[in-house]
Amino acid sequence: MLHIGVVGEGVCSRATGRDAERVGAAIARAGAVLLCGGRAGVMQAASRGAARAGGTVVGVLPGFSRHDANRWVTIPVVTGMDQARNVVLVRSCDAVIAVGGRYGTLSEIALALKLGVPVVGLRTWRLAPPERRRVPLVRARTPDEAVRLALRAARRAAGAAHTWQS
Amino acid sequence: MLHIGVVGEGVCSRATGRDAERVGAAIARAGAVLLCGGRAGVMQAASRGAARAGGTVVGVLPGFSRHDANRWVTIPVVTGMDQARNVVLVRSCDAVIAVGGRYGTLSEIALALKLGVPVVGLRTWRLAPPERRRVPLVRARTPDEAVRLALRAARRAAGAAHTWQS
Amino acid sequence: MLHIGVVGEGVCSRATGRDAERVGAAIARAGAVLLCGGRAGVMQAASRGAARAGGTVVGVLPGFSRHDANRWVTIPVVTGMDQARNVVLVRSCDAVIAVGGRYGTLSEIALALKLGVPVVGLRTWRLAPPERRRVPLVRARTPDEAVRLALRAARRAAGAAHTWQS
Amino acid sequence: MLHIGVVGEGVCSRATGRDAERVGAAIARAGAVLLCGGRAGVMQAASRGAARAGGTVVGVLPGFSRHDANRWVTIPVVTGMDQARNVVLVRSCDAVIAVGGRYGTLSEIALALKLGVPVVGLRTWRLAPPERRRVPLVRARTPDEAVRLALRAARRAAGAAHTWQS
Repeated sequence: MLHIGVVGEGVCSRATGRDAERVGAAIARAGAVLLCGGRAGVMQAASRGAARAGGTVVGVLPGFSRHDANRWVTIPVVTGMDQARNVVLVRSCDAVIAVGGRYGTLSEIALALKLGVPVVGLRTWRLAPPERRRVPLVRARTPDEAVRLALRAARRAAGAAHTWQS
Repeated sequence: MLHIGVVGEGVCSRATGRDAERVGAAIARAGAVLLCGGRAGVMQAASRGAARAGGTVVGVLPGFSRHDANRWVTIPVVTGMDQARNVVLVRSCDAVIAVGGRYGTLSEIALALKLGVPVVGLRTWRLAPPERRRVPLVRARTPDEAVRLALRAARRAAGAAHTWQS
Repeated sequence: MLHIGVVGEGVCSRATGRDAERVGAAIARAGAVLLCGGRAGVMQAASRGAARAGGTVVGVLPGFSRHDANRWVTIPVVTGMDQARNVVLVRSCDAVIAVGGRYGTLSEIALALKLGVPVVGLRTWRLAPPERRRVPLVRARTPDEAVRLALRAARRAAGAAHTWQS
Repeated sequence: MLHIGVVGEGVCSRATGRDAERVGAAIARAGAVLLCGGRAGVMQAASRGAARAGGTVVGVLPGFSRHDANRWVTIPVVTGMDQARNVVLVRSCDAVIAVGGRYGTLSEIALALKLGVPVVGLRTWRLAPPERRRVPLVRARTPDEAVRLALRAARRAAGAAHTWQS
């Protein structure tokens, strides 16, 4: 089963929340598991979208209590590691979708790029490395396109890992 | 939904494996989610028990790949943090059952005691603190008793946390 | 005593290595402790600069063995947490200097921004957030300027933290 | 340079504190670096002993601020990972001395045993594994004996690691 992460800020505009909710719903409709940071803002909107569409929502929480999770999280994972939980979240995904986002989201995009997890961005950071290398951050224009691109990349990544394993 | 952890060694005897499988099955039949380290031995036996009984199995993996999970894990969480994943596992549980076990299991028992997560032991470590304090490690004689005691403690712990939250 | 972090890629050009070495030397001459990831490339060059100038070099290592540290590290810290060590590194600094850098460095810049640790960049990533907010990543043109700016920001940050504490 | 860890509870009796201080002093006099959790109780007493004897004290802190360190810590490392810092602490040591201790200390003893780091106990936990295996936890009767045994084990462990590396 594919694991798609959604990362984004904990306080977001209405428009960004709507996008995140659509992203979550499309992930669930595709039969994939949604992973996120389990808190408010983009995380909550995506969780709601997925849960209402009947999907499973894993919330990888930074704090000490399961009660920090938003109400749409079905599997809370309590790390007690603050921002180090971003690594656990990203590593557990076949692909990650960044919706908007501030510094925490930027760290998750960077960690995904570092770990080789495909990233799709929807109105998110633009990044220019020091030596004009190409950054493999795919840009989508709509929530549906973001999920389509993420699923495609996830299937390719999961397939590659599998082949490499066997 | 209650989260019950099962901790134990990665290589185990047949008898210990049978116990772990029964523990996993009883957790699933009670409608609780099983969390474990996601690998072999006690973890795999408990996962198999739970999965065959239709339960959800979260595997909190120490390594870098989801493919390290045993085949009964339904939700693999990939920490890439080796033994530090023990903290994430224990913290995510309402109660933990230790089945047999070596040093990794001992660390999980200790972390549960430290974090205030109830622990039930089935043929596991005996611990004598330096100053004869009482260690709240409940001992069970059978897999079913272990799960019954863990669920009771988990309900009390979850209830207390909830009350304290609201 | 001030703690200044130097982050940058594990394989770097000669020019970048020269810059990193000068950064390390200037940190040590200022009487500050240098923290870095403890490995090769920018980390090693900065460590060499600091150690040769008589400074203390803390290497926060991603792997399992102290023997992974470059030979200029005086205090190796072995996390066994791969990229999650980036959080430990950044959190332990009063200010961070990014020299060049790829994705790991980008994650460290992002984590510093998230945690409120001042960051100075020397020929490093350019970042445009989704909503045109100003990113407080100060740019330096020379190693000496980078260290001067980092020390100034570190003193301000350490002072603020201290006031806030008492 | 050898790294010796001292683990023990955050609130301790006067007698235990005296022992910890002597342990710290003997570590510093032997020219080894002392690592500890950086907080109060046994950690602070050991830090004071080492610092007063002119030694270096690395404090691997569980919280978010360097200001949590006791005043004798010379190199604070801020993990922000609560109990997961125990893994970082133990992994960074050539040997660990447990002085008294409660559950956190028990977790550190267990992690050291798991990771193959030699452990010496001074009035600490007694441990009986489920299958009567011998636990390699060496017991000392005095602070000086504890440090002597730890240094000997550390030299052997460091030597072995080195040989294995080359």
